[in-house]
Amino acid sequence: MKAYQDLTREELLSLKTQLSDAYEEAKGKGLKLDMSRGKPGISQLDISMPMLDVINSTSDMRTALGNDTRNYGDLDGIGECRRLMAGMMSVNKDNVLICGNSSLNIMYDTVSRSMMKGVNGSTPWCKLDKVKFLCPVPGYDRHFKITEYFGIEMINIPLYNDGPDMDMVEQYVNNDASVKGIWCVPKYSNPTGISYSDEVVKRFASLKPAAEDFRIYWDNAYCIHHLYEDRQDEILNILEECEKSGNPNMVYIFASTSKVTFSGSGVSAIASSVENINYIQSQMTVQTIGHDKINQLRHARYFKDVNGLKAHMQKHAALMRPKFEAVLQVLDRELTGLGIGTWTNPNGGYFISFDAMEGCAKAIVAKCKEAGMVLTGAGATFPYGKDPKDSNIRIAPSFPTPEEMAAATDLFVLCVKLVSIEKLLEDNYGRI
Amino acid sequence: MKAYQDLTREELLSLKTQLSDAYEEAKGKGLKLDMSRGKPGISQLDISMPMLDVINSTSDMRTALGNDTRNYGDLDGIGECRRLMAGMMSVNKDNVLICGNSSLNIMYDTVSRSMMKGVNGSTPWCKLDKVKFLCPVPGYDRHFKITEYFGIEMINIPLYNDGPDMDMVEQYVNNDASVKGIWCVPKYSNPTGISYSDEVVKRFASLKPAAEDFRIYWDNAYCIHHLYEDRQDEILNILEECEKSGNPNMVYIFASTSKVTFSGSGVSAIASSVENINYIQSQMTVQTIGHDKINQLRHARYFKDVNGLKAHMQKHAALMRPKFEAVLQVLDRELTGLGIGTWTNPNGGYFISFDAMEGCAKAIVAKCKEAGMVLTGAGATFPYGKDPKDSNIRIAPSFPTPEEMAAATDLFVLCVKLVSIEKLLEDNYGRI
Repeated sequence: MKAYQDLTREELLSLKTQLSDAYEEAKGKGLKLDMSRGKPGISQLDISMPMLDVINSTSDMRTALGNDTRNYGDLDGIGECRRLMAGMMSVNKDNVLICGNSSLNIMYDTVSRSMMKGVNGSTPWCKLDKVKFLCPVPGYDRHFKITEYFGIEMINIPLYNDGPDMDMVEQYVNNDASVKGIWCVPKYSNPTGISYSDEVVKRFASLKPAAEDFRIYWDNAYCIHHLYEDRQDEILNILEECEKSGNPNMVYIFASTSKVTFSGSGVSAIASSVENINYIQSQMTVQTIGHDKINQLRHARYFKDVNGLKAHMQKHAALMRPKFEAVLQVLDRELTGLGIGTWTNPNGGYFISFDAMEGCAKAIVAKCKEAGMVLTGAGATFPYGKDPKDSNIRIAPSFPTPEEMAAATDLFVLCVKLVSIEKLLEDNYGRI
Repeated sequence: MKAYQDLTREELLSLKTQLSDAYEEAKGKGLKLDMSRGKPGISQLDISMPMLDVINSTSDMRTALGNDTRNYGDLDGIGECRRLMAGMMSVNKDNVLICGNSSLNIMYDTVSRSMMKGVNGSTPWCKLDKVKFLCPVPGYDRHFKITEYFGIEMINIPLYNDGPDMDMVEQYVNNDASVKGIWCVPKYSNPTGISYSDEVVKRFASLKPAAEDFRIYWDNAYCIHHLYEDRQDEILNILEECEKSGNPNMVYIFASTSKVTFSGSGVSAIASSVENINYIQSQMTVQTIGHDKINQLRHARYFKDVNGLKAHMQKHAALMRPKFEAVLQVLDRELTGLGIGTWTNPNGGYFISFDAMEGCAKAIVAKCKEAGMVLTGAGATFPYGKDPKDSNIRIAPSFPTPEEMAAATDLFVLCVKLVSIEKLLEDNYGRI
């Protein structure tokens, strides 16, 4: 394959005509595909249906300690569910607080409380002139929405294959007291799918923050979401590393079963030092009398322990793999060598990240949409929705079937090619 | 019965000796009773067990509109659950937003958002020098905790048998722009059990707030929680009245099924004008992708409509009545005519409110505790935990059995008598 950059104007124009015809034909098919969000597929949701039988009208509704899950109490979550989530998050039970149905909601609440009341007694952030968060990019749009909503200034940090640019992270965190946090998806990162290397985790744990209320927001959303049996990423335990480095309170870890059981009907958890957990509880008691303990019991009894979770996730992987492979096959076949895009081939998580030629992402997403295929908005993976290179596109293969994903990727590569050609023509010959 | 105030010193002293003996005997029994919170009794929780069979592994998990409740979506709640809660709250479906498991959490979030972002675009409260809430007293301790947590100044408003002192409410709301809200439990009020008269509701709806971002926080927690078939309170529809008065956005209504199905595993809702609901949703989308829709479906399918809820609540009433009556019988028999206490006899809700002689509540609660009976802390029903008269005690009869409630009230009246005698002796003869 010849790279598009090496084609003559005539070759580009002829290719454009060809591809335009194919695109018009594709449009005519009236496709309707939504690859915008990391939504589990229907067959994935079906896997968890037996969990709905675990609690029924004949069940003993008491916890191991004898507390009635149907009544008020257990603000920190029932013991068996704390143990389950602790296993998933590789921490001790006492480091875990079970919350509602959404880890995003815990992150929002954590930032919200810091804005109004500070962190473990520090000055409330809303009283400060400036509060900044570091944002490894590309990253998770909903993280950025939270910080944007609260008026927190976001600073882009390049995300490499082994984690964020740690020189830059250290430079900011260790010198700028207005830097209060960093958003991390350390394992099977959203959207690139990379995992942080041991060295990166150790450098995180060894930060010497200028701000006492600096925290690492460690969103371990995909901690057990492997795609392959033989290709699995593992990351160092950040809580342990922080302890070792004398920074026991520096990290908040978030996780949930939204992509294990049911999206919206799972359980979520925050893990941190006991001191942090106690502080959060002392605030949380104003907000709620307690979370849904019946659903906690349902999860704890169904999975029993972390091994139950892992076995369950193998079933998810079996369904997810063909979808990822369908995308990767088309990308490999159609785009290799053309010089108009690069993409990731992750070992887990929910996304494939595609980098188009600079200045092409928005146009590609728009072109896909015109033909009936909705992608995550270009730019969404960057703070303020602004990708400085207009290059990154997040592909979420989980919801459609493998066949639909293949068809969708056919359309996607068509749009990538067309937009790239138009860009090259414009750049090289637009001023003739 | 002779009022204690009319007894001589010798009569009081002799009575004290008698009662002290009885108290020591009671202490010896090693009672362990918790009447501190409005916790449903076990037999009440049992009523809702069949709901846990409604959703199982063979269920069609789609809403009437075909949306999969197991996946992301429906931030505002599934249609059938919005309809159910709308019926419960006497509003239209479009006025209702379904949230998580706790209406307290919605109230907290509503105040929290107002602090950080204002109300429908007004100046964020955290940017203002002073924000005040009116607090009808006695009232619900957890309301007061929320406003205290956010540093909002609370102003006591006397609560009469037909509602708050509306002259005072109008005086504050219509003239002081720093007054941003008022906490109301309009039906079977916590703790007094009174309901607002039509005139009071109309006066609420006709307020002319000095602050554009003033809202009525209408916690209709006990809207369907009648105790009797033939003695039921009904209140005017505040949302309709506000519309009629040209104040369509002035009220937020809160409710949940925490005391209908399971405490902590119910569904909660906020009802308001469509404009308010849309504004809240536009903010809520930063906080969460959606709430637990499977639990919404469970509730909607089990109850079908508001009539299902009402029939269900009759079963609760049958269990609650004997508990309330056990308390009232003892109070009537033991305290009538003694001049040392008054109490309410509500038609619904969860509480009986007891007013001791001034300066006696704390001592009574402490004396009960010493004998193994935990009551809501004296003062808790007032902002900052400070009952200016040290008089009000909230009795929560729901959790113990009727027999336990009778025994508990025996102990309670003993403590009331003893403390009252000590107070009278101290007041009248303490300086001799």
